[in-house]
Amino acid sequence: LESIVLASGSPRRHALLNMIGLRHRVVPSTVIELIPEGANPAQIACELAAQKAREVARAHPNMLTIGADTIVVLDGQILGKPANESDALRMLNMLKNNTHEVITGVALVYVTPEIATEATSDGNVPSTGAQELPQGVPSSAEETGPEGSQVWREQGFSQRIFHQTTSVTFADLSEQEIRAYIATGSPMDKAGSYGIQDDLGSLFVSRIVGDYYNVVGLPLQMLYEELKSFAPEVLTHVFNAAIVTKSV
Amino acid sequence: LESIVLASGSPRRHALLNMIGLRHRVVPSTVIELIPEGANPAQIACELAAQKAREVARAHPNMLTIGADTIVVLDGQILGKPANESDALRMLNMLKNNTHEVITGVALVYVTPEIATEATSDGNVPSTGAQELPQGVPSSAEETGPEGSQVWREQGFSQRIFHQTTSVTFADLSEQEIRAYIATGSPMDKAGSYGIQDDLGSLFVSRIVGDYYNVVGLPLQMLYEELKSFAPEVLTHVFNAAIVTKSV
Repeated sequence: LESIVLASGSPRRHALLNMIGLRHRVVPSTVIELIPEGANPAQIACELAAQKAREVARAHPNMLTIGADTIVVLDGQILGKPANESDALRMLNMLKNNTHEVITGVALVYVTPEIATEATSDGNVPSTGAQELPQGVPSSAEETGPEGSQVWREQGFSQRIFHQTTSVTFADLSEQEIRAYIATGSPMDKAGSYGIQDDLGSLFVSRIVGDYYNVVGLPLQMLYEELKSFAPEVLTHVFNAAIVTKSV
Repeated sequence: LESIVLASGSPRRHALLNMIGLRHRVVPSTVIELIPEGANPAQIACELAAQKAREVARAHPNMLTIGADTIVVLDGQILGKPANESDALRMLNMLKNNTHEVITGVALVYVTPEIATEATSDGNVPSTGAQELPQGVPSSAEETGPEGSQVWREQGFSQRIFHQTTSVTFADLSEQEIRAYIATGSPMDKAGSYGIQDDLGSLFVSRIVGDYYNVVGLPLQMLYEELKSFAPEVLTHVFNAAIVTKSV
């Protein structure tokens, strides 16, 4: 059974879902990310996650689509992926001997085949429902029961959005250490120009406050809690996979 | 060149050293761990790390031996590896919806061939120097310089001990979740009956404060800082390995 779609090309997110036994198909979103004006960093991460998930979900009705977006925020400024090596150098010089926030927004989206086929020629967003749906996480009581699910399915579109913040403190780094890290190539595809799970990135982070996996790309514990109410059927696979893997 | 010995059979520590490019030989210690009376948890972790490192270092002169010991502490009580499944159940029920501390003690030990061959028939500890050496981390100024190293080499024995503490918060777990986790077998060889890097362990931890890798088994960032002064020559391999791996 392959009922989950990961709307992200990030090899880290793919590996994290595999780690927890969530079998899935990878379908990177091709959406042109539109950053809402006046939004704060958490809203931006959530909105971008939702844009990605909605686009991919439209092509995958009756499946659970997971979108995510991770941003790095230092003193209110968002650090994206580096444009080039000197940009990575600039960012790592800002991060060293300092504490920043990593925010990952996650969107879980489910659409019915009827909604999915109401295609818009250019639309990254399903033609019905998506715009009007409330942002943020509704109380689980409204959604977890069979009754709550029905309400959303009548609209043909169900979405849950949440985010997690982790604080990350870097050690003081020398110019030599930063340049050696950039020479590995690893910073170049990562927001903030580092990966906490890297060979060298792991040596540069002295302390975090929050969920480690949120820094890697998905807040696993929170995702797990949300799936319990949004799509509990997929979690049977998590437990089965864990037990089967370890018992051999 | 294989100049590092890991005096631990933990596959997690082996993987962490590999991750940061520290090539090493694995030689698990067979020492009978003696817990010093009246010691606090950090002292116990350091002492056990030192006992393991000293035993293995004696058989591997002229190499850097790394010993480590990770303990889990909840409300002042040390949780070791579970004796059986019901013991794991007991521990996980204590950890759920609660915050505990994970302390990893690390010992870096170097002995000269002369000291190594002064064998004691039963001794887990080198016959000279080990007992009298100061515990804790001497100021790096005394050790990093070539002069400082000479002082220690005159005794034929050099040792550095340090520890790191990470606070770990578990989500509230159901009986079903705990039993499913134990059924994977994963808790059985781990202090506190969990692994934060597990398929399911990763879903149970909502928040940490400190170094994530310290919970896995080695405080990587602190180890890196200590190696800079204790054995900087081994770090050239870290950087070379990182660059070579990523550039192909």
